[in-house]
Amino acid sequence: MAATPDVDDLVAQAREGRPRAVARLISLVEDASPLLRSVAAALAPHTGRAWVVGITGPPGAGKSTTTSALVGEFRRRGLRVGVLAIDPSSPFSGGALLGDRIRMQEHATDPGVFIRSMATRGHLGGLAWATPQALRVLDAAGCEVVLVETVGVGQSEVDVVSLADTTVVLLAPGMGDGIQAAKAGILEIADVFAVNKADRDGADATVRDLKHMISLGRREIAGRHWRQPVLRTVASSGDGIADLAAELDAHRAWLAEHGELDGRRARRARGEIEAIAVAELRSRLTGPSAREAVLAELTKRVVAGELDPYAAADELVDGLR
Amino acid sequence: MAATPDVDDLVAQAREGRPRAVARLISLVEDASPLLRSVAAALAPHTGRAWVVGITGPPGAGKSTTTSALVGEFRRRGLRVGVLAIDPSSPFSGGALLGDRIRMQEHATDPGVFIRSMATRGHLGGLAWATPQALRVLDAAGCEVVLVETVGVGQSEVDVVSLADTTVVLLAPGMGDGIQAAKAGILEIADVFAVNKADRDGADATVRDLKHMISLGRREIAGRHWRQPVLRTVASSGDGIADLAAELDAHRAWLAEHGELDGRRARRARGEIEAIAVAELRSRLTGPSAREAVLAELTKRVVAGELDPYAAADELVDGLR
Repeated sequence: MAATPDVDDLVAQAREGRPRAVARLISLVEDASPLLRSVAAALAPHTGRAWVVGITGPPGAGKSTTTSALVGEFRRRGLRVGVLAIDPSSPFSGGALLGDRIRMQEHATDPGVFIRSMATRGHLGGLAWATPQALRVLDAAGCEVVLVETVGVGQSEVDVVSLADTTVVLLAPGMGDGIQAAKAGILEIADVFAVNKADRDGADATVRDLKHMISLGRREIAGRHWRQPVLRTVASSGDGIADLAAELDAHRAWLAEHGELDGRRARRARGEIEAIAVAELRSRLTGPSAREAVLAELTKRVVAGELDPYAAADELVDGLR
Repeated sequence: MAATPDVDDLVAQAREGRPRAVARLISLVEDASPLLRSVAAALAPHTGRAWVVGITGPPGAGKSTTTSALVGEFRRRGLRVGVLAIDPSSPFSGGALLGDRIRMQEHATDPGVFIRSMATRGHLGGLAWATPQALRVLDAAGCEVVLVETVGVGQSEVDVVSLADTTVVLLAPGMGDGIQAAKAGILEIADVFAVNKADRDGADATVRDLKHMISLGRREIAGRHWRQPVLRTVASSGDGIADLAAELDAHRAWLAEHGELDGRRARRARGEIEAIAVAELRSRLTGPSAREAVLAELTKRVVAGELDPYAAADELVDGLR
């Protein structure tokens, strides 16, 4: 057992960029440790500076390779960089293959880069609150940019995307044909599109389809129009990565110019407060053993058809008072 | 505007197998209509009979074709069959392609089959409560078996899988290689594996990998062992579908023999009650406009770094009293 850490000391060390302190703080928030609240309180005054870039797309699009290449690009500018790699523990996500982590290893010894894989197997809604807290740790640790890499499948990931100031959607040739992508709403979440593996057959068609979709579905943010660019990248060789970073910069500048950076941060904070409050209420519903007996009895009556689940939920909630 | 329907009358019609009444009831529960609670109450006494079979797997494995073939198989036995096709509205789910719905059309005019696509774009947790309610409608409508087809990606789908009495995981040759599948935990959710498109190259290897994984990770349910079979199917031609249905039957018989059918139903009811109670509490947090002003103020303080999100959530929850 590790000794109980001094939270203020850990936060001070994290602000100096000490990787072990950063890792320890993320573990404390991720595991919902008893110190979670004091960690959150100690971090609060030092947050609000990081630029959060979401990188998402279907399995096989090259998210980890692209993330790694972008880390290199931002490091060349001397920025401190954080990476949160989200593994939603999906049965089929394909998001946590061994190779992905290996690709990221070139940055593992760089003291200006903090990389963290977040996994939440079995913890419903876990990502929804643990990820923003990990983000706060990296923000307080002085990361000027935090890359949040998520496998873009399932509802939970869309929530993670909502954390980002700027979201890149990656596609690869031959996947995500135009109709499917349009239907599925990636237009709504993408600030920048990159067709990765652009040296492969079919890249032209994928770029063309995307551009066509964009021309159909113009996207307004509060009445102001951001034109989603479509780039070609070959992340494994670095081709196109500087251009991609430049487009991300352009989007950030556009957000700042239109007051949208503040808007997105407020939305993020609001989402965090709500998620934590709901988790707290949920634990009050089922936590104490007396409540547990009530829930077991209600379950029995619903199974027997004596009660419907709404009436049962009402009884459960009313019992909270 | 449609006139307000008579709920008891609708339920009576649904029990007679009238498709319009079934569709109307599902719409009422899916849209969280004001009648939702009276619908739930009217359904309750007539539920608890349906056998729920989950069909899941990665995009491209042939879920819709397999579902359709199983519908045909159960219809040949004279059973009334319900189908819930879940589209988690993922940006990349691939779960709602035009072709899928067309494949199901052969059953569209069969009065013994009720097919419903559920979509929940944008509604966080929407599937979690709407799907079980739709299931209750089909159950009350006398469906002896309900097939729940979900694209198996993301956390939300794992929740849907937890609805099922019996879960089939579909794979196709060349996807889901052994290591990835094992890592991702499909072993835990599958009662029966089917390697679909088994006439393609690589089917033998996929079957072999699965069998190897199963031999490594034996699965115990309450100390009793169910051996997960691995079948080969070509759903498009119907090959292997009768065998698949027979294995589903065998699993159901095994569940019944070990008291697990009741156990799974209780778990399902419990999950429903919890999900509804949490949704109710969530709406109390943010619903009324006075609360909205409180949340806006708390958000502002969190963005300014004056307050951490946990302290803000505490204030929000305390204000509920």
